[in-house]
Amino acid sequence: MASFVSRLVCSRCGASFDPRGVHHLCDCGGALLVDYDLDTAGRTLDRDAVGARARGGMWRFRELLPVEDPASIVSLGEGGTPLVDSPRLAASLGLGKVLVKDDGRNPTGSFKARGAASGVTAAVERGVREVALPTAGNAGVAWAAYGAAAGLRVHVAMPADAPRANADSVRLVGGDLTLVDGLISDAARWIEAGIAEHGWYDAGTLREPYRIEGKKTLGFEIAEDLGWRFPDAVVYPAGGGVGLIGMWRAFAQLRELGWVGGEPPRMIVVQSTGCAPIVRAFERGEEVAERWEGARTIAQGLRVPSPPGDRLVLRAIRETGGTAVAVDDADIGAARTALGAATGILASPEGAATLAGARALAERGDLGRGDRVVLVNTGSGLVQTPD
Amino acid sequence: MASFVSRLVCSRCGASFDPRGVHHLCDCGGALLVDYDLDTAGRTLDRDAVGARARGGMWRFRELLPVEDPASIVSLGEGGTPLVDSPRLAASLGLGKVLVKDDGRNPTGSFKARGAASGVTAAVERGVREVALPTAGNAGVAWAAYGAAAGLRVHVAMPADAPRANADSVRLVGGDLTLVDGLISDAARWIEAGIAEHGWYDAGTLREPYRIEGKKTLGFEIAEDLGWRFPDAVVYPAGGGVGLIGMWRAFAQLRELGWVGGEPPRMIVVQSTGCAPIVRAFERGEEVAERWEGARTIAQGLRVPSPPGDRLVLRAIRETGGTAVAVDDADIGAARTALGAATGILASPEGAATLAGARALAERGDLGRGDRVVLVNTGSGLVQTPD
Repeated sequence: MASFVSRLVCSRCGASFDPRGVHHLCDCGGALLVDYDLDTAGRTLDRDAVGARARGGMWRFRELLPVEDPASIVSLGEGGTPLVDSPRLAASLGLGKVLVKDDGRNPTGSFKARGAASGVTAAVERGVREVALPTAGNAGVAWAAYGAAAGLRVHVAMPADAPRANADSVRLVGGDLTLVDGLISDAARWIEAGIAEHGWYDAGTLREPYRIEGKKTLGFEIAEDLGWRFPDAVVYPAGGGVGLIGMWRAFAQLRELGWVGGEPPRMIVVQSTGCAPIVRAFERGEEVAERWEGARTIAQGLRVPSPPGDRLVLRAIRETGGTAVAVDDADIGAARTALGAATGILASPEGAATLAGARALAERGDLGRGDRVVLVNTGSGLVQTPD
Repeated sequence: MASFVSRLVCSRCGASFDPRGVHHLCDCGGALLVDYDLDTAGRTLDRDAVGARARGGMWRFRELLPVEDPASIVSLGEGGTPLVDSPRLAASLGLGKVLVKDDGRNPTGSFKARGAASGVTAAVERGVREVALPTAGNAGVAWAAYGAAAGLRVHVAMPADAPRANADSVRLVGGDLTLVDGLISDAARWIEAGIAEHGWYDAGTLREPYRIEGKKTLGFEIAEDLGWRFPDAVVYPAGGGVGLIGMWRAFAQLRELGWVGGEPPRMIVVQSTGCAPIVRAFERGEEVAERWEGARTIAQGLRVPSPPGDRLVLRAIRETGGTAVAVDDADIGAARTALGAATGILASPEGAATLAGARALAERGDLGRGDRVVLVNTGSGLVQTPD
């Protein structure tokens, strides 16, 4: 069965685009999102039949993903990660239920694999041969790996002080790696120059419409694993924030499909006190996030001073009655050990930040005994940052 | 449905033991293995019904695993890892088909998670509170993680020069870690002293009967993913060699169940030229492997000078018409990059050794165009060894 993709739509001005062909940003500068004919999909697709598919990871949801021909799918077995129920964490935080979505179990050790799988698949269907992206680390590894699987050339620019393991991993799967002095925003400028000069396909955050679609499957899986119900809150460590936007859209799509009823979860952002542009904008009631100067945190994935998805992230938080909180590096470190000892999950610093954030929110009364809370561990703790 | 476990049997003298209760080695010193009533299981269980279970990872095979009550299962989502078909590797080696079983995708980044899941589950069902094991690295992380999930205390002894990430990871999940100067055999002596003094449960390689059972599921999954057929050869990087013994038993059990027909695959061992006790014993026609002096290799998991399962590994190789080959560190390093660039899989040095070994065997004519070959990547390449 074909996908129910209907069109691309600008997230800022609402302009429509043909879903075939190569598209990046809208003329107005807005990011493009993929729309589906959910009316027909809801009448045609059975959630339990989709759920009963024994294989396929995130591609079990292929009709709700941007792929024309299932034979084009580039997969390393992404998605289908565990949702680990931790009564011990729930008791320690005083919450109704705490579930950890362990997305570090993906290929290349992070949730970025979902976006790379859908993004590279879309690139392959459009005849692309060379893609390029800036990265704080994990996305570069994921795109290089899926590029290798598909036989594409992948150009990656990464801050020179990103974790050594990320740089090693990009090279291990044959990616073309450039280390740039500075932050991810400096790496982005290097990539833009390369795109202008060589015509590479721009795979930067929200600069093509397909990456976010893979990340959306995180939301599908969470609802499915709860028996096609929504949790009360999802706590997400936002660097670029695309995973959060993706889940927010997934929850809305599940309601429109008629697969899940009731209120979608409150979307909660956790950032580091060393780089918290979204938290600051949320607290100030602003619609866009001002650039964060002097960004610095042990959670490298959160070191994104100007998140490209700021408008959408802030909308997702506000429309769902969510909130945003910043935690410091000491709390992240302590939460990492607490999460590991309570569950056996090796969490990344970014993933551990969600536990620190949930603890802060429980203390200030924003989460409580009535809440079933999902913490998203976006990366494997095996990707070690040496001291 | 309950498990079809029937008894424990000594792999050396054939003595039988009650499968309940705590058992370690036989009085004769032989390792105990778990036997099943495969006659009844074959009449009762349907392979396709088991295969259609959408969830559960390796525990989809729970009736063929040592667990009395499914509620006791300690799981972090192990098993169900991808079998990646690589036409590019097949072409480059001149083989019929090359499939990579990417077992680095398990919790804690290695196939050791399978053994820890079954081993910790069995320990929990026997009322054990404290377990202890020596490790080259990965097994310690796995047991510490599953111990944390189950609320057990886990004592781990590891060579002081094991990868830093392994030591960090054991601590991250609350394991009690001791670094020992020397090799895994020295760590084993430290653990034996602790067991004698404190009465810890001995979870060392083949010193309890249940760890190997989890690893066995590797074989079940490979046959299932090939449409309930055997490959022609399985290439395995042998440190302790338990995974190979487990798969060998799994293939025999699948035949006895009537689930798979035809000849079981040739079992092929790859070791490092810096520590190749099994290869040497195989070439000399010996039944046991003499200790390898001065063990040294970048593939830490292969640095096992006296593999406890030597007799069984050598039997598995000979009974299946397999072979054994040693590769050097330079070939392992080159194979790691070749595997990554051809498939997008981040392989451990141990996993990459299977590609180097397959290349050597293709060159000497032991593998050829008619062969469908499975390479077992036992660990994630994300577990970096800093140089």
